[in-house]
Amino acid sequence: MTTSLPEPPYVVVIFTSRRTGGDQGYGAMSARMMELVKDQPGFLGVESARNAEGFGITVSYWKDLASIAAWKAHLEHREAMKLGRERWYEAYDIKVGTITSHRMFEAP
Amino acid sequence: MTTSLPEPPYVVVIFTSRRTGGDQGYGAMSARMMELVKDQPGFLGVESARNAEGFGITVSYWKDLASIAAWKAHLEHREAMKLGRERWYEAYDIKVGTITSHRMFEAP
Repeated sequence: MTTSLPEPPYVVVIFTSRRTGGDQGYGAMSARMMELVKDQPGFLGVESARNAEGFGITVSYWKDLASIAAWKAHLEHREAMKLGRERWYEAYDIKVGTITSHRMFEAP
Repeated sequence: MTTSLPEPPYVVVIFTSRRTGGDQGYGAMSARMMELVKDQPGFLGVESARNAEGFGITVSYWKDLASIAAWKAHLEHREAMKLGRERWYEAYDIKVGTITSHRMFEAP
């Protein structure tokens, strides 16, 4: 869980996707992007889950819209996005917004 | 993918969770909640993915904060939330915010 997030408000990117079949280099690139994104200015955290049918949700949290714009312009990320459209995704949605409240539960 | 969403802005609830082991009635309740939520006033859509390790993300979209408050107060949902804390979740986070942009890609 993303317990290290600051108090809201902060910005969110919700990336939902349907993968094509097979790996085709996806696993390695995904790991590389997770590594890269952690060093981006304004990056606050990321959570990701994909089910057995290939439907996945990745939610990333950011300080502001400028941080997202810089990540979107990052050369290696641009190359990954290009390959994503060509090879790895049948379809995806990207939603951007602002988180205004956050509460947590942990079992005793 | 949630292609039936209206133009932003709309409200989002991001529910991330770690499940306890075993089903313990979770599957049936989860299906019932998915059925119920679709009839809630102001409900716009929901997307959900859980990986093999039991980490899941459910994102639901709503017309406004009042719609979320009504769903939170729904009696069957309240019972489900109570059982969730007692049985089904080791931990969860709930983030609420506003989606301000949405774009889509579909492979040709």
